[in-house]
Amino acid sequence: MDQEKRIRQLEPRDRSRIEEMVVSSGKFNDVEIETALELVDEAIKEGDASGYIFAVLEYGKSNPMLRGFACYGPIPLTQGVYDLYWIVVDPAAEKKGIGRYLLEYVEHEVIKQGGRMLLIETSSQESYGATIRFYERNGYQLAARIKDFYRIGDDKLVFSKVLM
Amino acid sequence: MDQEKRIRQLEPRDRSRIEEMVVSSGKFNDVEIETALELVDEAIKEGDASGYIFAVLEYGKSNPMLRGFACYGPIPLTQGVYDLYWIVVDPAAEKKGIGRYLLEYVEHEVIKQGGRMLLIETSSQESYGATIRFYERNGYQLAARIKDFYRIGDDKLVFSKVLM
Repeated sequence: MDQEKRIRQLEPRDRSRIEEMVVSSGKFNDVEIETALELVDEAIKEGDASGYIFAVLEYGKSNPMLRGFACYGPIPLTQGVYDLYWIVVDPAAEKKGIGRYLLEYVEHEVIKQGGRMLLIETSSQESYGATIRFYERNGYQLAARIKDFYRIGDDKLVFSKVLM
Repeated sequence: MDQEKRIRQLEPRDRSRIEEMVVSSGKFNDVEIETALELVDEAIKEGDASGYIFAVLEYGKSNPMLRGFACYGPIPLTQGVYDLYWIVVDPAAEKKGIGRYLLEYVEHEVIKQGGRMLLIETSSQESYGATIRFYERNGYQLAARIKDFYRIGDDKLVFSKVLM
């Protein structure tokens, strides 16, 4: 067990820290940031019934602070397939294994909930290169590519991992 | 112009006919049928702002009856990519070109709204073979396959057509 990291459920007070992290990561445009906060609001209002399950990670022994979060949920009309909608680490707390810790937590939760596969959609844009390597290091394989999905020249990549 | 076919916007009274057609097509399970009707309800309540745009087709010169519908909408976070969520033809009115008429109508509408690509997700299940051939005949290409997506042995197929 990692004593510096603690994962807990989403609380309403987390909204502003989540906004800070999504903005300061520099990876997301305004519409994407708005989408992330809409998911936070739905999850706060409706809980897991919203389909968006959040895990937030606090880092630090003496003065723990919210340093990352993940959002995942079951994909409707599938048997046991989950989507990892968001995984974000505070850029001020990189290289501490927070991303991997969150990802492994989500995988365990998905298995506990009866899931058998986790999908992650991402962009082929150059700026996401580190993200793509992170998924590959953690056992994810490129399952599909939709050319020019986000914009001309910016494909959608779907990574997958069979969990059982 | 085809004088036997008329496409119009969704009206609240169409809900029961849409339910009848989705059920009688025999292609959809209970959860999928429920999902279709939720989209109808959202579209009736919120209009195009729901993200689900319906086109319903009436067939017959003297006694027109609702014989098919399509539901499509812009995919969030993309520039000009649309998803065809549903296209259903009353099994009692097959072989009249209703599916193709609806599909071409949707393509024209998507272009009018500034769209550049239309995606259609479907299942690899044997029972959808005729549907897949219908997409291929109309210029759609298999863009991606996610193995075991719906269930083990039942893949998700994504067909795409560039519209401009």
